[in-house]
Order: sequence, then C-alpha cells, then structure tokens
Amino acid sequence: MSTTAVPPAATPAPVVGALLAALPAGRVLDDPDVLASYAHDDAEWAPHAVPAAVARPRTAEEAQAVVRACLEHRAPLVPRGAGTGLSGGANASEGAVVLSTEHMTDIVEIDGSERLAVVQPGVVNDDLRAACAESGLWYPPDPASSPWSTIGGNVATNAGGVCCVKYGVTRDYVLGMQIVNGLGELVRLGRRTAKGVAGLDLAGLMVGSEGTLGVITEVTVKLRPARAPEHTVAGYFDSVVDAGRAVAAITAAGLTPSALELVDRTCLEAVDAWKNMGLAAEADVVLLGRSDAPGAAGDAEAAEMLAHFEAAGATFAAQAADPEEADALFAARRLAYPALERLGPVLTEDVCVPRAAVPEMLGRIQDIGRRYETTIANIAHAGDGNLHPLLITPVGDEPARRRAQAAFEEILADALSLGGTVTGEHGVGLLKREGLQREQSPEVLAMQGAVKAALDPHGILNPGKVL
Amino acid sequence: MSTTAVPPAATPAPVVGALLAALPAGRVLDDPDVLASYAHDDAEWAPHAVPAAVARPRTAEEAQAVVRACLEHRAPLVPRGAGTGLSGGANASEGAVVLSTEHMTDIVEIDGSERLAVVQPGVVNDDLRAACAESGLWYPPDPASSPWSTIGGNVATNAGGVCCVKYGVTRDYVLGMQIVNGLGELVRLGRRTAKGVAGLDLAGLMVGSEGTLGVITEVTVKLRPARAPEHTVAGYFDSVVDAGRAVAAITAAGLTPSALELVDRTCLEAVDAWKNMGLAAEADVVLLGRSDAPGAAGDAEAAEMLAHFEAAGATFAAQAADPEEADALFAARRLAYPALERLGPVLTEDVCVPRAAVPEMLGRIQDIGRRYETTIANIAHAGDGNLHPLLITPVGDEPARRRAQAAFEEILADALSLGGTVTGEHGVGLLKREGLQREQSPEVLAMQGAVKAALDPHGILNPGKVL
Repeated sequence: MSTTAVPPAATPAPVVGALLAALPAGRVLDDPDVLASYAHDDAEWAPHAVPAAVARPRTAEEAQAVVRACLEHRAPLVPRGAGTGLSGGANASEGAVVLSTEHMTDIVEIDGSERLAVVQPGVVNDDLRAACAESGLWYPPDPASSPWSTIGGNVATNAGGVCCVKYGVTRDYVLGMQIVNGLGELVRLGRRTAKGVAGLDLAGLMVGSEGTLGVITEVTVKLRPARAPEHTVAGYFDSVVDAGRAVAAITAAGLTPSALELVDRTCLEAVDAWKNMGLAAEADVVLLGRSDAPGAAGDAEAAEMLAHFEAAGATFAAQAADPEEADALFAARRLAYPALERLGPVLTEDVCVPRAAVPEMLGRIQDIGRRYETTIANIAHAGDGNLHPLLITPVGDEPARRRAQAAFEEILADALSLGGTVTGEHGVGLLKREGLQREQSPEVLAMQGAVKAALDPHGILNPGKVL
Repeated sequence: MSTTAVPPAATPAPVVGALLAALPAGRVLDDPDVLASYAHDDAEWAPHAVPAAVARPRTAEEAQAVVRACLEHRAPLVPRGAGTGLSGGANASEGAVVLSTEHMTDIVEIDGSERLAVVQPGVVNDDLRAACAESGLWYPPDPASSPWSTIGGNVATNAGGVCCVKYGVTRDYVLGMQIVNGLGELVRLGRRTAKGVAGLDLAGLMVGSEGTLGVITEVTVKLRPARAPEHTVAGYFDSVVDAGRAVAAITAAGLTPSALELVDRTCLEAVDAWKNMGLAAEADVVLLGRSDAPGAAGDAEAAEMLAHFEAAGATFAAQAADPEEADALFAARRLAYPALERLGPVLTEDVCVPRAAVPEMLGRIQDIGRRYETTIANIAHAGDGNLHPLLITPVGDEPARRRAQAAFEEILADALSLGGTVTGEHGVGLLKREGLQREQSPEVLAMQGAVKAALDPHGILNPGKVL
C-alpha cells in the first residue's frame, strides 16, 4: 500500500498538538462540530470563525500552560467565560485557541470579616451571589446575564447591571486578581485590603480590557453586607419621552434609587409571547424603580419616585403589592433580551448618555427606527443614562440587516453628539471598534495601543478586539 | 573694559530659558530662595533638591507648554499640588522643573442633574466640597489634608480619608480627566456619563500614578447628593489592642459606619499642647465612629457601635451630645499630624492590613516602638485597616533618626506578613519604593515599568518616583 495514495487528514495547527501535550487528558477540544459552538459569543452579527482548538483548564497553572503554548506558536488566544457577551469580545478568529473558563468554577473563599470573596473566573455571577447571601453578604454587580455569565467575563467587560445606578459597576468591586500575562507569567495584581495604592493600578487596568492584556485566573472581589428589602414601584407611560422625563426628574431631585429601569412595549410583548405573563396590555413603556433605603426612608423614597412618575405623565403608577409582583416585573426586564432573540438576530446597542439627555436620546432612537424601517425595542438602565436599543431583523432578510446596521451607526453618532459614549457596559469587542475610533482622539487610541504593546508584546491576547 | 574680566553668572539650565520664552510673564519662578520652598513636599525625610525652576501655569495649554519645554530639553518634570504629600512624590531632584498647579484653581462646572463637577487640578479639596454643598451635593473623598490639598494631588495619589470606610477613595469618584501625556499631547481620558467602558481605562490608570504617566490639567468627578446628618460616638480605651478588637467586631457584625477612626494618647497630647483642647486626660486611645444612615437607622447603628465599644472593654463610651462636641473630636483627629510635626520631623507610615489583623498590627507597632526606642503616635482609619503610625524623632538626633528608619522598615515588613500593603492611601513616592519591591513580584514590577515606558517614552515624568 502506497503511503502517498491516501490523502492526508487536514493537518491540525501545531498549537493544538502543543496543547494536547501540555494539558491533562480531556482539557482540549478539537472536534470540529464541538469547536463550532465556540465560534462566537452572543454577538453573532460580528465576524467570527471556528477556532483551531478550545482549551478548558481547571487550574491557574493549566491556564498558564495554554498561554505558553500560544506564545510558543504565536497563536491568537481568545479568553471566554459563558459566551454571553454582546460585542463579540469572545468571538474566535481563524487559527485561534479559545480558552474557556467553564471548568474553573471554584468559590475559593468568602470572608465575612474582610467582606471579600476569592473565586475562579468561571464562577457564575448568580452562584457567587447565592453563596454570599448564605453569609449575610452581597455581591452587587448584576448584569441581566447573571444566571449564566461568569465573574471572569464580568471583570473582563466591566459588566454593569440593574443596581449599578446606586452601587456602581464591576470595577468598583474588584480588589485584586491573578492573571497570566502576555509573557506567560502567572502574577497577582491588586490586593486583599480595603485600601491600597502600591504602584500603578494594573488590576484596575485589567477590568474592562476584554482579554487583550491577560487571562484572568482568579478574582478577589469586595462584598457588601446584605441590604434592606427593596420597595418596588412601577409607572406606565404612553411614550418613551415621558418616561425619560421622569428619570431625569428623579435624579435632579437628589433621589438615589437602587434600580431605575425602562422596558418598552416591544420587549413586553416578546416576553408575553414567550412566557405568557400578560404584561403588554397596559402601557407603551414601563418604568421600574426600587429603593433599598432602610426603614421609613425606603417608603419615602418609593413615594417620591411615584410622585415623579405622575408628574411626568404616567397613566398609572403604584407600588408593587408584594415581592412576587415586584419580582415578576423585574423578571420581564431580565427576560427581554432572550425573548427578543426568539424573533430574529438582535443587534444590541449599549450607548450611555448624560441623564438629562435620556428623553432626547430615546426620541431620536424612535425616529431612527422609523427612518430605517427597523424594529427597535428598548430596555434601559434609565437612571444611569445607559440605553439598550435592540435592533431586530427577520432571519435571512439581508436588506433589513443592512438598514439595521445603518441605524446602529446612527444611534452611536447621536449618542456621541449628546455627550455620551458608544458603550456603557457591554464593551467594544468587535461591534464597537469603529465607534471607539469616533469617540476617542487618535492620541488616546495611540496611548491604548502603546499599553497593549507593552503588556502583550507578542500580540497573542485576543488580537483584533477593542483596538 | 575687558569682556572677560567679569566672571559669568551661574548659567541657568537651558530648560529655564525655554520656559521663560514659552509662558507669559510671571509664570516661571527662578529665584533660588523661592525655589528652595519647592524642594520637597511633606516628606522631607526623603531625598530632595532645589529644582531648576518652578512653572505655575494657569491653563491646560500653558501646562502643555511646560511639558513640551521639558521634553525638548529632556528635563525631569515634577508635578506638584499643594505639597501636602507624605511619601515624597512631589520632591524635586537636581535640574528638575516643578510644575505647580497652585494657580489652576477654577471650578469649571458643577452639574446637579449629572451629579458631577469639572475642576482645574489646583482646586483645594475643601473648596470643591463647599461649592458642592451650595448645590445640595457632596464630594466624599476627605483626606486629613482637605483644607490644603488639591484635587489634582488627590487624584495623583488616589487619596483616601475618613469617610472612605463607607464611601470609597478618590478613584471611586473620578469619571474623567484632561492630561498632558508623555509626548506633550493634551488629551481627554474617561467620560462624563455615569457608566462607560470604551477602551482601556486610562483615566483609572492615571489615578494614583503619582505624576509618572502625565500631568493632570482638569478632572471630572462624580458627586453624591448631600447626605443625612451624622451621629457621632466615641469610646475610650486603655489599650490600642482593645480598640482594635472593637473595630474588627464592628465590621464582622455587618455595620458600615461612615467613619471609624482611632487616635492615641500621643496624638491627643500633641493636639492639647497646641490647641489646648483638654483631650488627653481621659484615655490612652479614642475610637470615633459615625453613622449617616438616615433616620432611625442612624440611631440604631450608633447604638450598635457603642455596644461593640463596651464589649471590647471601653472604659467610657457615649454618643456626642451635640454637633459641636462631635466636630471637636474629629478636629483633634485632623489636627494630629500638624500637631505632631511641631515636636520634630515625622516619618509617616501608611500600612493597610486586613481588618481582622488590626489588633495584632497595633500591638506589633507598640512593640516595635519600644524595641527601637522610638516615639510612635497612632492615628488610623481603623475601619479600613489603614494605620498611620507616626514616628517622631527629636530635631538633629541622628541616632534616633536611624532607629526610626529601622522601625519604619520593620512595620512595613510586619504589615506585609499579615497580608497587608505598604501604602493604603499616601502613595509610594520615594519613601515606599523599597517597600513596593518587597510587596510585589519582579514580574509585576516589570509590567509597571513597561506601562511607564510606553506612556512616558522619554522618561521625563516624575522620574525615580514609585518604580
């Protein structure tokens, strides 16, 4: 039998062999069908390709071995948490190795006296939250993806969420971390103490860097004591602009709600169609507010929010009768995104504008939807000015897709013209790279490029993302 | 008359001529007597020299001209706020140009609806605070130097303060800034919106970088609504260790005081000797706690703190009778440092340890003072674990000075061995450079060096500081 007669199997990239040699059995996936499911995160609109391999380390040292194999073979490395990102930060490219943290799920430590937790990056946000609650503690950052997304991914994107309007974003809770850096070294950044200013804040720099500066192998987060039960209020409005005015008035009045969310009829209908919750009959737009001020102060803040809802033209405004009703309203907010995805590919905006510009921006988004004949649903962390217009197109309708893309770019431009940013909490990834170029000066982009080159001199860490 | 007979005047450094040519009249100081007063900040223990010139720009463009002159002549540039720093970050070196922001004192904007302020870097912390209060707003970071220190200096050192135990440090309030970077470019970093994740967090990286990455020419800070009046409690203890146990118990119980400060007898006596306040008769150590929880919750939290004081062995514990009494107690805390400076050169520690380690660390500090025959006074942001042992030596006593230096190094080593950091809020400057080397791994120090080199490729920005 001739050795040349049989066509050779497709040669795997050399890095795959190196990974298989460096890691225990079962850590490296190279089956093409399986690899395909790691091609993109929740931003399938953005470019993506099937990776050469997926490595699923269980320890920091195994993650280090993955980085070293990529360094040796100059293979692009794409870190990935749960793949719930909305900007394509975890989308794979040709020949890339995806490092999935899905098996790094240990909660290493919860320390009530220091009010901190130490976790592996693959711990799911809600799992950490539940573990903290058992000790009377609270990890605030609560992206809508919290049932699925991981702390590592949350840190890499500086994830926000519903309670950020009062409690800040992921960045505000990261004390320190362990990473594998661009030279393949396993290092500790930051601290465990309540305060610390020893040297440049590299731990802070890692937050939101979307895997372009290092691979996170452990995170130390700050916790708060469990808080008082929340009071929930809801207001129904005939227009997003009225609702936007209520939001601006609440901030201007000095209130600090623990949530102030907006959901429009398109979202409510999608949730109804999926979960049969009967939400959309009542209003074009719902504002959901919460106060967790303790005792009587919470009642007073809830009442003040209701008064602002009414003054801004709410057709109905009331405090939730019980926790079940309140949770149902917030569940609708949380389910809006997956409910809309059932209707077709969703292109997700994430602009953040000054709070006073919320009514103006919501009006412009409506107008853009009309002009580009694009269905735009709106959910918003309204109290932060962080809006999520969701552009939906029928599956396979290429002209609709092009119109949606044009609408997307125009929303970015409008947000910038109102003093906003192209991304409030989802990150730049692939989808907002052009937006970033428009938002920031060439000098600032060059400074970022210089930092990237300094910390990832071989250019293997999530290349092509952000910058 | 021969032109060679007259000895030439000492030639000024070429950069001085360039500064005089580039800036309006009066902006550049070159009188040797005046220059001497800019040789060091409040860390006169650290190395310093009379600078070649002091530039006092009034605008960002003038600050840019200073950086460009230094770039052209490769002159070291030392940014300086009020000179209240305690680690030598603003100490001058031979041939350096000091850029003082003392004339950049405009509060550009206070926006109540966005809850932000835009200020020039030379605005004094208390002046910003007072201006915010007029609009019902509050800028929380409150270093003890707040009557004198500037926002630019606070940002450069990531200053802390008394209310950080509940409200966080300067970093938590910086939204964005304008800087002159290491290439002499005037750029804007960060944002004005409540949230934003567009690109690497360079604004955050600048915070605490002690002038080594750029010169701050404007800062945009986040504000909070004015808060409820505080309840103040005081506890007198016979030992720092008892007081430390009270602190650990308060945190472990889930309380979040708005201040939790420790002052020992040496400090109280120094304040008495200066201001005749009659404080030191009663106790070896005083703990001061505050709660700003609204309404009845504040009363309850104050009462719980008192109960923890008593359980830890307080000889006396009571709520302040009125705001005047409460303010007097906190004034003593604030005046401790200048009061001690009247007794001789003060070498200031700034270690931060895990909260549970506060009693142990305070005991070790007492022991170190005894062994090195060094007077060590203690003030502490006890609720954060951030301790400020103050080492005092008689003027001109060189052996005492050497003993104090050895005690200083041993305190750093002990803090590290308890899981702490060498600097909680003062910065590395010159005094903690060796401590930083001990705290962080060579790999992490190299990463910082790479970032520094990337953003200051000509090495003119506060060279020799931090790294």
